[in-house]
Amino acid sequence: MSVSDNWLSKVNWTEDGLVPAIAQDAGSGDVLMMAWMNREALKRTVETNEAVYWSRSRKKLWHKGEESGHVQKVKEIRLDCDEDVILLKVEQVGGIACHTGRHDCFFKKYENGQWVTTEPVLKDPAEIYHK
Amino acid sequence: MSVSDNWLSKVNWTEDGLVPAIAQDAGSGDVLMMAWMNREALKRTVETNEAVYWSRSRKKLWHKGEESGHVQKVKEIRLDCDEDVILLKVEQVGGIACHTGRHDCFFKKYENGQWVTTEPVLKDPAEIYHK
Repeated sequence: MSVSDNWLSKVNWTEDGLVPAIAQDAGSGDVLMMAWMNREALKRTVETNEAVYWSRSRKKLWHKGEESGHVQKVKEIRLDCDEDVILLKVEQVGGIACHTGRHDCFFKKYENGQWVTTEPVLKDPAEIYHK
Repeated sequence: MSVSDNWLSKVNWTEDGLVPAIAQDAGSGDVLMMAWMNREALKRTVETNEAVYWSRSRKKLWHKGEESGHVQKVKEIRLDCDEDVILLKVEQVGGIACHTGRHDCFFKKYENGQWVTTEPVLKDPAEIYHK
């Protein structure tokens, strides 16, 4: 580990070597999503100024937008008081953060004992992901 | 489990029975903090309209503001696409969410390989917590 990586060691990583990372729209303040980062993901995020997460399901680095083009340009990176949560302030390219084609991932709203879907699909996922 | 608790079972709890919960200021959009909830914490949050978390360090329910008076009045509760992250939109009583006496917990900003403390302490923690 080089001296210049000391900042990475300040983060209180989980036993699995991860930290939750919240992505917030730098302009509107909307919370877009929460994902996880490992050491390498956070380092790459800093180096490239684009959000890189660790996909727990695919078990690999996930450069957000690598398929969809909906990358997140990172304007600011913050760490919380307990040094175990990251907050990214980002410019969300395409205005779509969610894999469902919505602006953000928090589109299920609690109402009278139910989760009600509230936000529109801006783009059909079939058009976003060309598989 | 009563039928009316079905909404709780929709949440993808971790193996430890927890879910991360982000608290966002309903007015300004500022992200205040992230903590964890278990089933009981989320249920009480809905029932009381004040944020109740699960303290992993103290291993007990934590009615945010129970000591400090800085409770979070819950205006909206959202669940994300993967149903494993909660977003609370809250009114932060006292304008102080962090136990350090700051407005929010994300006061360490990444700058050139260092985490730099950026936000002022609004109130001395010794005055907030009367122990």
